[in-house]
Parts: sequence; C-alpha cells; structure tokens
Amino acid sequence: MQITILGAAGFLGRKLATRLARQGGLGTDKITHLTLFDLAEPPAPANPPFPVTTLAGNLTALPAAAIPPGTTHVIHLAAVVSAQAEADYTLGLDVNLHGTLRVIEACRRLTEAGGKPPRVVFTSSVASFSGGQSATLADDARQLPANSYGAEKAAAELLLADASRRRFLDAVSLRLPTITIRPGRPNRAASSFISAILREPLLGLPAELPVAEDFAAWIASPRRAVEWLIHAAWMDTASLGLDRGINPPGLRATMGEMLAALEAVRPGARDLVRRAPDAEIAAIVGTWPAAFAATRARMLGFTAHEPLIELVRAFIADDLAATRADRGLGD
Amino acid sequence: MQITILGAAGFLGRKLATRLARQGGLGTDKITHLTLFDLAEPPAPANPPFPVTTLAGNLTALPAAAIPPGTTHVIHLAAVVSAQAEADYTLGLDVNLHGTLRVIEACRRLTEAGGKPPRVVFTSSVASFSGGQSATLADDARQLPANSYGAEKAAAELLLADASRRRFLDAVSLRLPTITIRPGRPNRAASSFISAILREPLLGLPAELPVAEDFAAWIASPRRAVEWLIHAAWMDTASLGLDRGINPPGLRATMGEMLAALEAVRPGARDLVRRAPDAEIAAIVGTWPAAFAATRARMLGFTAHEPLIELVRAFIADDLAATRADRGLGD
Repeated sequence: MQITILGAAGFLGRKLATRLARQGGLGTDKITHLTLFDLAEPPAPANPPFPVTTLAGNLTALPAAAIPPGTTHVIHLAAVVSAQAEADYTLGLDVNLHGTLRVIEACRRLTEAGGKPPRVVFTSSVASFSGGQSATLADDARQLPANSYGAEKAAAELLLADASRRRFLDAVSLRLPTITIRPGRPNRAASSFISAILREPLLGLPAELPVAEDFAAWIASPRRAVEWLIHAAWMDTASLGLDRGINPPGLRATMGEMLAALEAVRPGARDLVRRAPDAEIAAIVGTWPAAFAATRARMLGFTAHEPLIELVRAFIADDLAATRADRGLGD
Repeated sequence: MQITILGAAGFLGRKLATRLARQGGLGTDKITHLTLFDLAEPPAPANPPFPVTTLAGNLTALPAAAIPPGTTHVIHLAAVVSAQAEADYTLGLDVNLHGTLRVIEACRRLTEAGGKPPRVVFTSSVASFSGGQSATLADDARQLPANSYGAEKAAAELLLADASRRRFLDAVSLRLPTITIRPGRPNRAASSFISAILREPLLGLPAELPVAEDFAAWIASPRRAVEWLIHAAWMDTASLGLDRGINPPGLRATMGEMLAALEAVRPGARDLVRRAPDAEIAAIVGTWPAAFAATRARMLGFTAHEPLIELVRAFIADDLAATRADRGLGD
C-alpha cells in the first residue's frame, strides 16, 4: 500500500500518520510508502516501518510527487474551514473545490496509465447539510448547505462520486461531525468554540460560549474520526454504488451536556466558560443539523461513538500535554 | 430589464429570444437590451423593440461584454449535453462546471460594483437525478447523478445556490425534463431518440427506438420550457430560501404512448420507427427518473403540461417547416 495524506500537517493528518506508522499497514496489507503533503512541510511520524516523503505545496497546484505512480490510497483532509471560506469566497472555492478537482485529475492520470483506481477518502462535513437543531437527518437526506464551505464540500462530493463511477478513483466521502476536542488553538472554523469550551478550561484558560447551553451539535472525537478514516480507507466499496457519501455515527451533544462532562472530569473547570453570544457564529452553526440516523454507516462497519465523558478523558490522555507544550503553557 | 441569454444559438435560446422580441418585456417591465452569446454568433430575433447584441465566444473564457454592467437577467442555457459529456470528461467539466463558475464571477463583479444581484435562470436537468423507471421523485429528493453531465449540473446548482445566499446573484435552477420534440437534427444527448422517434417520422424519415415501448420518460415541450424559463426569470424568489432548485411539472410518457400520439396525429407515421436496442443509451437514460411530484413548482406558479397530442401538434405548428428547410428536405 502506498498512501498519501493531503492536509497532513493538520491535527487529524498527524494523528493518522502516527497511527499508520505504529501499525505498519491496514488489515493484512503492509504500507510500503507514505507521502505527507500540506501547505507547510508536515512532520514525519516517529519510527515509521516504511519510507516517508514530506512535501510542501499548494493543493491547487498539486505536484505530481504528491500522488505518485503506485498510489493506492489518498486521504484528502486538506480544506479551508467554514468561517474562513465564508470570509474569503475565492480562497474557499480554490482549495475546497478546485483543489479536489486537482486530486481527481492526479488519480485519473494514474488510472489512465494503467494503475488501479486509488481509494480516495474525502472529509466532507456536517456543514454540507442544513435543517438545524430540530432535524434528524436520514441517510438519503439532501445536502442543502447554508455556507460556502458546505456548498464546496457537497459539490466536491458529487465530482468524486462521478469520478468513482468513471473508475478514475474509488471515493468514500465521510461527512465528519464537528471534531471535538480539537487539540491546538482556536481556529477559523465557525464551530471552533465547540472544542474550545472543553479544551481551554482543561488548559486552565477561559473560553467563550457563543450559543445557548441547550444548543446541540453533532460531534465526534479525534480518536473516533481516525478510526473512521482507517475504516473508509480499508472497507469494501462494492456495495456503495453511486452513493459515495457516508454520514458516520457521531454523537449528539448539547453544550450543557458537554460542560457537565467537563465538570465531572475536572471539577470547577466549567466556571472558566463564559456566555458571550455571537450572532454571526450562531447563524452559521445554527443551520447545521445536530442528529443523523447514520444507519448505513453502522451497516458498513463504522464504529459507534464512545460516551461524552470518554471523549473528555481521551483529550487529557492523548493531547493535553502536547497542546500545553505547543502553546507554551508549561507543564 | 437588460437580459443576456448564454447558449442563445441553441433551439431553446432562439425560441426564447424570439418570444422576448415579440412581447418586448416581462410582466410590466420593458426590455432595454438583449445580449445573445454562444460558441457561434447567435441569430438576432426578427424586429426586436430593443437593441440586440450578438456575441460569439467560449463560456469558459466569458467576455465581460456577455454580462455587461446593468444586466438584470442571465438565462444560462449553455451546456455540453449528456452523451457528449460522457464521451469527453474534460469538455463537460469545462463547460458545465467551470463555465457556470465564470457566470458566477461575472455576476459577482457586477454586484460588488454596486449592481443588484442579477436573476440567473439555470437549466439543470432530470439527468442530475437517478432512481430510474419506478421512482416518483419528491421535491426534496437527493440528486445522485449516474452520468457526468448530471453531476456537473448538480454541482453547478450547489454553487449557484451558495452565490445566491451570498447575494452575488439570484438563481433559479430548473431541472428541465427531456425536451420533446426538439427541432433540428439528432444530437449527442443520450435522450436524442425521445424527440427523434416523433420528429423524424413527421419529416417522413425513419427513426430508431433504442429502448422498449414501455420505457417511460419525463418530458416537456419546447413551448412549456419557454414558459417556465420566462416564469423563472420573472417570479418572486423570496420564498425559495436556500433551495434554488425547481422540478417543473413535466409529463411522464412511455415511448408507446408517444408513438400512439404520433399515429393519432399522422396515421401511418409510427411505421417509420424501428426497434434498435442500444445498451449504452439504455444504460444512461435508464437511470433517469420518469416521474416527479413537482408540488413546489406548481405552488410557485410553474404551469402544468399540456397533453401529449398537443405536444405533437405544436411541433407541426411551430417547427416542422423550419426543420424541413434547415435539413434541406424541401416543402
């Protein structure tokens, strides 16, 4: 297996690369080469049992070396996130739509030269749906995005599904829930606060809640997201047919439930969270649905989500020390 | 009103331009300028009560003059049709996706310079859906295209809906049924035969039916399509919200019903139609649904379809003589 991760410097990309280096393969197949690509050169994982190439570049001018001949898997995580794509229309379109077209072109070149269609695991998003707080979306729910990021992701999904039908590649598009708890810093995703209200207090820092405590979100832990990415890379796609989009089984959680889990794990921590209503953020995230049936994903073997309290504990186990160090907060 | 028709040399574009020249305006508003754009310079309609500019060019290098300042309406009919987009992936993507992005850019430039968002009427297609013969699609049915043309149209719809939300433009995307009877010649649409089995016998020529007589299609006459385009250009879009896609109320007809209507209008004509099974054509059109609820379109004022026999008579009244002349068939 020869794997490329696009967007490999992001936290999911780094976790995935570390995991691949640790296990050396997927299922019974060994990894023979890993290529990591991002805007800035991504870090290589420690002690990989296979050669690793790290490349810096822009997705919209994707170099041939990023998806070299022999590539069997492309994990395409590269994106301009929601609030940024909303603020800079052209940048969002360039990366989220045109960047994905570059990935399709690269795969098409490989298959037209005789290669097997590479599995492309594409991270689409809950933000490609609307329906809001009261909706529970069925597996065949229509994507009617209320933000440019979601529109670009949904359009890219259509093009990847068509490229799969044409056998240029073999796509699985995972509409990821809001990943919680993201390590690192607040970012320009409109959903950044959903992680921040847990992460910042665990770091001893204050955080702001721009929505009400009964606001619900569809979330997934980094651990679960990495499991799903690996399953999407490895699963049999024969039964997918035309429909390459998967709504994985995330967790519906209100902000109040999340703060209660925080308080249970670290008593007193929720006092660091202050209510600071933000109409712009609330308008974006308010359109995202907070619940999905996710029946098809379960039948396809995507694992169920762990309880909320484990999601908080997993951040402490996996990411707290590195986040403290990364942000210069000492031990 | 300052109107641009993109794809104005096609038969729908010409019919629409003729109609606009005849009525001089939409509702109570007068047309002050009409711009006609296509690959080859489109013909100007006879005796227009307003100035007409005709332009030749490629949609993917859309000149600024095609959508000049002051444009209030863009009727975007330009497309690479289904069988051609299937045969030439890059061409289909260039025109159907990137061409539409050029239209969005042009409108965005006008609105960022202070203009009102132009109404963009986009012709999407029944081919952006799948489900096949047994399906009756609800208004919120998901577009799961089984051909590149449909994927490009559905992706373009998403981008136009997002551009509407951002107020770069004000889009209405009409998922047109298979237009029947198309004048002119057989073309590279997979659905070309649906018109040909009526048009060719009316011209005294033989035609081939590549599917069974009980094969059903979702069709609309050119007269009805022009009415819908005008309604989409003129209607109030305030109630559309995020959802800019309309499934207009076409007609479900089997090939047998169409041949019976032909025979009723021109006895003996159906003997010119020969069964010639074509697996490739059948595979493409077999995925298209043959029925839609079209409830929303009716509520929004899109007019109901006339009976099949009127569709045959309308071709004789509107298009038979011109088609004979165009094809050098004499009187």
